[in-house]
Amino acid sequence: MISKSQIKLITSLHQKKYRIKHDLFFVEGTKVIQEFYGAGWEIYALFSTEEIDFVPDGKVTLISEIELKKISALKTPNKALAVFFLPTKKPIENFNFSIALDGIRDPGNMGTIIRLCDWFGVKSLLCSKDTVDCFNPKVLQASMGSLARVEVHYLDLENYFEKNQLPVFGAFMEGNNVYREKLPRKAILLMGNEGKGISAKLETYLSKKISIPQFGVEQQTESLNVAMATSILLSEFHRSTEM
Amino acid sequence: MISKSQIKLITSLHQKKYRIKHDLFFVEGTKVIQEFYGAGWEIYALFSTEEIDFVPDGKVTLISEIELKKISALKTPNKALAVFFLPTKKPIENFNFSIALDGIRDPGNMGTIIRLCDWFGVKSLLCSKDTVDCFNPKVLQASMGSLARVEVHYLDLENYFEKNQLPVFGAFMEGNNVYREKLPRKAILLMGNEGKGISAKLETYLSKKISIPQFGVEQQTESLNVAMATSILLSEFHRSTEM
Repeated sequence: MISKSQIKLITSLHQKKYRIKHDLFFVEGTKVIQEFYGAGWEIYALFSTEEIDFVPDGKVTLISEIELKKISALKTPNKALAVFFLPTKKPIENFNFSIALDGIRDPGNMGTIIRLCDWFGVKSLLCSKDTVDCFNPKVLQASMGSLARVEVHYLDLENYFEKNQLPVFGAFMEGNNVYREKLPRKAILLMGNEGKGISAKLETYLSKKISIPQFGVEQQTESLNVAMATSILLSEFHRSTEM
Repeated sequence: MISKSQIKLITSLHQKKYRIKHDLFFVEGTKVIQEFYGAGWEIYALFSTEEIDFVPDGKVTLISEIELKKISALKTPNKALAVFFLPTKKPIENFNFSIALDGIRDPGNMGTIIRLCDWFGVKSLLCSKDTVDCFNPKVLQASMGSLARVEVHYLDLENYFEKNQLPVFGAFMEGNNVYREKLPRKAILLMGNEGKGISAKLETYLSKKISIPQFGVEQQTESLNVAMATSILLSEFHRSTEM
């Protein structure tokens, strides 16, 4: 059984302002819940249509599928929903390589980029303050359990680049052919907004503009989706450590 | 004004069996419509909330936003919807490089892969018969106008690989590190189903299994999404032509 006030609390967490107000967010699906829990994230409450054995009994509330549907952000709810405390803000750890996002707005793109960070061992993701919130349910849907292992920081990128010493590589439609560049192991890769690209104020901090050349003859494609472009550029930066 | 029978026809085209029955499919958004039209696709009818000047007058029906909502597959309809004739089946053109898909089911992944083919100049996409239909409205939403320029063939891949001479590279979790492989310019890249990977019957035709190494230390990520993996592997095959 889930109470009305619990339903109200959880549905409010679909919105960022209430996630901040309550210091909570939620994830769905037993496997993903287990990944967050296993990575040390603190659980507030867990609602499940099945018995769960990996968290203390007091935290688990068995509910019906109809109740789950009321709190889920998914069209087809996935057996369990867990409410976790938002993590405490930590300073950015030292890194050799990181990705910075300048105003990424699409939750699917954001989730995919977090998943890529996890795959490629990028521990910190640096985001401008207008980038979509990583605890948005749609971001979590796309990132699967990866957010449990990637620290996402929201900050003033201009201020950060001003002080930081690492070279910043920006993805542009008209940049140097990335396949012909010697990419350093220590760097930041900056990806711009889906429509507007990298903002003029950040462009001044770039060491180099890079581009994935288009191979089609007719040059009609608008641009690669930002998540696709991130996957290719991230792969380019990491292949050098493998050669 | 749109008639009831037109509404019935267009909504039926959301389903594959009616697309085949009527030999029609539809795309949405003026820009995408223009890309198909400009690439020589034959238009059956165009419904728009605004004047359209790039197709003959007789083909355009001005409709209200409410009418557009009735026929659109989008949550937020995009000004225009055009019905095109399905293309006539053509033989597969000779190619140096192509991608083959073994049972890709997610329309978003399929659309993204078509968009990648367009970017990287892959003219023919070879799909097993259980791969999602490329004229599915959700595929078209993800592929944007790219399908206008990429030929998608549905065929018996086993039969095709049996006769074809090009080496086939298959994407596997446990394959050779792709960054350390010398990739040929003439090849087929085979990508497997989202859950099951490449089927056993096709595995026997592989020249080599390749893999994108995971850089995260803890090795907890399930796998890269198939569209992400395709973007990286496609980039690896094409970078050699750029070096």
